[in-house]
Amino acid sequence: MVKVAVDAMGGDNAPGEIVKGTVEALQESKDITVFLVGLEEDIRKELSKYQYPAERLNVVPASEVIETDEPPVNAIRRKKDSSIVVGMNLVKKGECDAFVSAGSTGAVLVGGQLIVGRIRGVNRAPLAPVFPTTKGASILIDCGANVDARPDHLVQFAKMGSIYMENVLGIRNPRVGILNIGAEEEKGNALVKETFPLLKEVKDINFIGSVEARDIPAGAADVIVCEAFAGNVALKTYEGVGLTMIKEIKGGLMSSLRGKLGGLLIKPVLKKTLKKFDVSEYGGAPLLGLNGLVVKTHGSSKSKEIKNSILQCVQFKDQDITGKIREKISEEQK
Amino acid sequence: MVKVAVDAMGGDNAPGEIVKGTVEALQESKDITVFLVGLEEDIRKELSKYQYPAERLNVVPASEVIETDEPPVNAIRRKKDSSIVVGMNLVKKGECDAFVSAGSTGAVLVGGQLIVGRIRGVNRAPLAPVFPTTKGASILIDCGANVDARPDHLVQFAKMGSIYMENVLGIRNPRVGILNIGAEEEKGNALVKETFPLLKEVKDINFIGSVEARDIPAGAADVIVCEAFAGNVALKTYEGVGLTMIKEIKGGLMSSLRGKLGGLLIKPVLKKTLKKFDVSEYGGAPLLGLNGLVVKTHGSSKSKEIKNSILQCVQFKDQDITGKIREKISEEQK
Repeated sequence: MVKVAVDAMGGDNAPGEIVKGTVEALQESKDITVFLVGLEEDIRKELSKYQYPAERLNVVPASEVIETDEPPVNAIRRKKDSSIVVGMNLVKKGECDAFVSAGSTGAVLVGGQLIVGRIRGVNRAPLAPVFPTTKGASILIDCGANVDARPDHLVQFAKMGSIYMENVLGIRNPRVGILNIGAEEEKGNALVKETFPLLKEVKDINFIGSVEARDIPAGAADVIVCEAFAGNVALKTYEGVGLTMIKEIKGGLMSSLRGKLGGLLIKPVLKKTLKKFDVSEYGGAPLLGLNGLVVKTHGSSKSKEIKNSILQCVQFKDQDITGKIREKISEEQK
Repeated sequence: MVKVAVDAMGGDNAPGEIVKGTVEALQESKDITVFLVGLEEDIRKELSKYQYPAERLNVVPASEVIETDEPPVNAIRRKKDSSIVVGMNLVKKGECDAFVSAGSTGAVLVGGQLIVGRIRGVNRAPLAPVFPTTKGASILIDCGANVDARPDHLVQFAKMGSIYMENVLGIRNPRVGILNIGAEEEKGNALVKETFPLLKEVKDINFIGSVEARDIPAGAADVIVCEAFAGNVALKTYEGVGLTMIKEIKGGLMSSLRGKLGGLLIKPVLKKTLKKFDVSEYGGAPLLGLNGLVVKTHGSSKSKEIKNSILQCVQFKDQDITGKIREKISEEQK
């Protein structure tokens, strides 16, 4: 049984979509117990709309809510009874295996480091979303947790990303690339130039060299290592272009009778294609390298993404990703 | 009359598409004279396929070609009779107003700085592509010329980008944003945090604060200032996702009879929509801040992009962008 604490108060659609996604996850997998953390009355009200296996759903009261625009360090320190702090403490105390939140990214990142804590030897805990490509899926690591990282941080990201893709997504010997602005080794900024030779020396990863942002959607590497600022820019551009194109195409189809008719015909094929670009398919972004799993999902998450974020915790626990990272990083220090 | 030197040997489709695009540009505008630079025999052979106003087309022989994978500084220094060096010298000597190349990005950037030269007071010459958004177009500055830039470089980029968008694209009082990983002022890496207050102090730009990559396609700012690595990642992701989605949608439509039929119906509307995401619509990326215009177009450019790249030189010359940048930057130094 995998025990997942879920922040019922986080994100634009809380608590409605969070509770709905939780119920859907419980219906889809028998291996999960969820602890919904937040304002009890609000949660119960939403829960009353559904039928669900009550023996696998617990409500954990938390009287405070951390808002998106609050300075995160302050919020984590002061709001001791917030859904994020209470949920993360469940993981810290070992009462839960994972914590899922669509709330303030800053607060989730800070809370992850301060409350759940980094695995001994891990220098930085990267945010590492898995996203769809035409070949399947890739992980982009780091996408926003640690700006201005050092080369040795990126080397750890490569190792952690490889463990994740191999064990959670089942990709054997995942190809590791470094995000760069050209294909050749001599290209790049100072950080990439320093990191490149270090990655070549790591024996137990399959380093394939530079990956240009242009080739990410086609699945140029399974693990794409990057500094958080660049990674965030890549991920957000990916999402932004995808969403904007879909909106424009749909708008275009609705603008004429001919378009509407054609739209009806192509609906199934368009839906299938667009699913390949739907970032919510793989759930949220894990914050890797912590003493327990923390998953950050989009602030705009609907129930499907919440459901997928909860379900992804099963594989993470079953494959003991935390244990594998601990082992790999401790090897490094021998 | 605007005199444009064109690198006939640059890019994946040289010289065929380059010559074709040149002929198309000459047919579209009477204000242009083109100097096609490269292997004379190859150029003449391509030219023989077309009818064109010969009085406005000159062939300038250059016996060498710089390849994409050559180290750029060496190539520019050694291949004195290459199409890039010969073409840039035409601009340096004032015989041409602009140089357009689809060749090696590195060689074009290095040649621009070493041969054409920076305007006095300009610290770095940024590569600044204009790209389509749902609102019209934005400029992303810098997209790959100067990695690891300093805050004062970004301030100059903001000024040059504003001048370009106001005068070449006719956007009054263009909104300037800094590419960031969050909307709040305290977000970002060290570079962004240092640059942000400097941009707020610049009186003659319309600084609107941070722009997240996600909001770029919707036209969140007219001028998006960024360090070259992040800018290149944003631009390349933009292009990559756009191209991949178009390919996938087209592939999806061809996979069934129903899709094919629907595809026929939606073709006009799809074409119109996709045009909004076609980076070749605005021609190539100008390298700003030089003593003359240098335009870098995609290595994969077809005739349309070459044509648009040549045509964009007219507005640049007519509006005296070089003079306006010179004036603005010299003001700074008083």
